[in-house]
Amino acid sequence: MLIEMAPLAPKDRYKLIAGFIVPRPIALVTSRSAAGVDNAAPFSAFNYMGEDPPVIVLGLQVHGAQSVHAGEIKDTTKNIHETGEFVVNLVDEAIAERMNVCAVDFPPETSETDAAGLTLAPSVAVAPARIVESPVAMECRRLAALEFGSFRQVVVGEILWMHVRDELIDDDTLTIDAAAYSPVGRLFGSLYVRTNDRFELPMMRYAEYLEKGPTRIRDADKPGERR
Amino acid sequence: MLIEMAPLAPKDRYKLIAGFIVPRPIALVTSRSAAGVDNAAPFSAFNYMGEDPPVIVLGLQVHGAQSVHAGEIKDTTKNIHETGEFVVNLVDEAIAERMNVCAVDFPPETSETDAAGLTLAPSVAVAPARIVESPVAMECRRLAALEFGSFRQVVVGEILWMHVRDELIDDDTLTIDAAAYSPVGRLFGSLYVRTNDRFELPMMRYAEYLEKGPTRIRDADKPGERR
Repeated sequence: MLIEMAPLAPKDRYKLIAGFIVPRPIALVTSRSAAGVDNAAPFSAFNYMGEDPPVIVLGLQVHGAQSVHAGEIKDTTKNIHETGEFVVNLVDEAIAERMNVCAVDFPPETSETDAAGLTLAPSVAVAPARIVESPVAMECRRLAALEFGSFRQVVVGEILWMHVRDELIDDDTLTIDAAAYSPVGRLFGSLYVRTNDRFELPMMRYAEYLEKGPTRIRDADKPGERR
Repeated sequence: MLIEMAPLAPKDRYKLIAGFIVPRPIALVTSRSAAGVDNAAPFSAFNYMGEDPPVIVLGLQVHGAQSVHAGEIKDTTKNIHETGEFVVNLVDEAIAERMNVCAVDFPPETSETDAAGLTLAPSVAVAPARIVESPVAMECRRLAALEFGSFRQVVVGEILWMHVRDELIDDDTLTIDAAAYSPVGRLFGSLYVRTNDRFELPMMRYAEYLEKGPTRIRDADKPGERR
């Protein structure tokens, strides 16, 4: 089926784009308003973009039409606009349910992290707090922001500091223990995905390819993997 | 463990950022040089950023230090720079091995898609071809490009047309058949992930949350899911 994007209602475009571009990593973003109120909300319009400088992007939006805040700018968008600072807290199986509580459209006086049973701790270099229960928290400062249309903003953030749960990383080599890390990804609608059904496809140099031909998929048992 | 990013070697930063920000969706990007040579290469510094206009981002880089093209701009980066056009072909289980062949550092005269056994077909609105075997191909035009440092470029592209394999979508309602769609995601090192181990976390409005409390994870059987 061939579909032209321009004539579609934004809602239908969203259904197609967010439905097919999966699985997406999840950023549970903590931010603090200029007045000092903490906010936490999950986003999956999120990814890394480079390492030198270390940058990530976030696609921030207004509240959806189904929200009681329809048409208002999301608190996260407003806070990052005001302060330029935020923390990306990554999400694993252990905190997936609590992440979802942070997506509820609470009134402004309710703390999402309190409601979800998540703990805030001070950051090193930015005002917004980090979430203690997250396997990895990345303190970020806005490098650039781009607006496309009136409903979405792309924020590019530089990662300044990274907090990593001790058992996930080797202190000396910075090697990640892949077997101990169980991040979840975003699919579509109300669906998410675990990341334990892994397979290997080694990257080949041209000389290896000439010698061996295409690599075949090999299932990767989760326990014992290290990179 | 607390890690400051700035003092680390870019290679170590890459290991941490790309290792923890997972699972990532995969864009098998086709592009065409000003001279008419087709190129295909996979990227996982990729995601959607919004629907109005419908935009995606790609983090494009120079070849890594382990490549024979170390330090050269990747063909994809050069082609998009020259022409502003590209196609994002999404990757499912059926074409994962072939996607990996497109990552081999072939000499410029070798067609990645020929080597991988993938078929190119003309696009509707852009010069670069699309990949017939991809479940979804999105014809894109550059809206903006940002450079951070000398090694990475963030390209924002508008999706103009979408080609969707017929059995994945209902023609009338544009509803995606989630049971028929098996995209794969990028993890770290040589690891990828299937997306069949799914669970549900319905988004709640505040009134529902007050009534029911937090939603618990419910496993989602893949067959029969529709959204």
